[in-house]
Amino acid sequence: MQRIANLLAIQDGKVLLLRKPRRGWYVAPGGKMESGESIYEAAVREFKEETNVSPINPRLKGVYTVVIKEGENVVDEWMLYTFVADGVEGKPYKENREGTLDWHPLDELHILPMAEGDRDNLLFASSKEGIQYGTFIYTKEFELLDQQFQTSE
Amino acid sequence: MQRIANLLAIQDGKVLLLRKPRRGWYVAPGGKMESGESIYEAAVREFKEETNVSPINPRLKGVYTVVIKEGENVVDEWMLYTFVADGVEGKPYKENREGTLDWHPLDELHILPMAEGDRDNLLFASSKEGIQYGTFIYTKEFELLDQQFQTSE
Repeated sequence: MQRIANLLAIQDGKVLLLRKPRRGWYVAPGGKMESGESIYEAAVREFKEETNVSPINPRLKGVYTVVIKEGENVVDEWMLYTFVADGVEGKPYKENREGTLDWHPLDELHILPMAEGDRDNLLFASSKEGIQYGTFIYTKEFELLDQQFQTSE
Repeated sequence: MQRIANLLAIQDGKVLLLRKPRRGWYVAPGGKMESGESIYEAAVREFKEETNVSPINPRLKGVYTVVIKEGENVVDEWMLYTFVADGVEGKPYKENREGTLDWHPLDELHILPMAEGDRDNLLFASSKEGIQYGTFIYTKEFELLDQQFQTSE
């Protein structure tokens, strides 16, 4: 089962997002955990690899079970760990092999094109107290079929 | 990859632990996540199934990568999600199919027989602020070879 860790850096009212060329969707920098890594190590390593800068005070904000369904069948399932940070040390890449990087006003999380589950995830991470837990159910084309959340302080 | 969620209920200075007969080791009630569950849902469901009572105000305290090594080879790897709760509603089972349940003074977490990684995990969960992340590396006989931690507020 895949484990994905991503990290949303928030600095001066802006968030650092990666725009991926395939769909034009925006994501928080991140990627696959490696064997033996903690989720914290994976989030920080992936963020550094994709941005060339270090996140300040990273902390977990969400843990999500992501399920891909084809009809009634579960065809894939993975875990997503979302961290936030109080900005970064240094100046991020403008682009990397995954796409283009830029700072966006926090409000744009409501309107930028992205997977609908990512939107809920990043809005929670950037604006709410506590930790969110949940499940996203998608089609193979990343159409959101269902989502459920729980939170704690 | 397995995903395990457990929950340490703390009430009146005591913690509810399950003693498993095989090794005589103590654990926090918990078990395997099911497909599509969130980690929160899994922790609460497993706790209720094993204790017959509901946890109060459950919240995540630790996320651990557990690696089993045989020599240099990784032979198993799973994720462990540890929650705490402010006690329980109701009176727990005295035993279940997994072992015997009882309340133990918090201090006994230092001395009760248990996997050494579980001890670090449960001591953090019961006595520290914030969230702990980490990796435990064990032999197949659950001898702790290495551990690394990170924390956030």
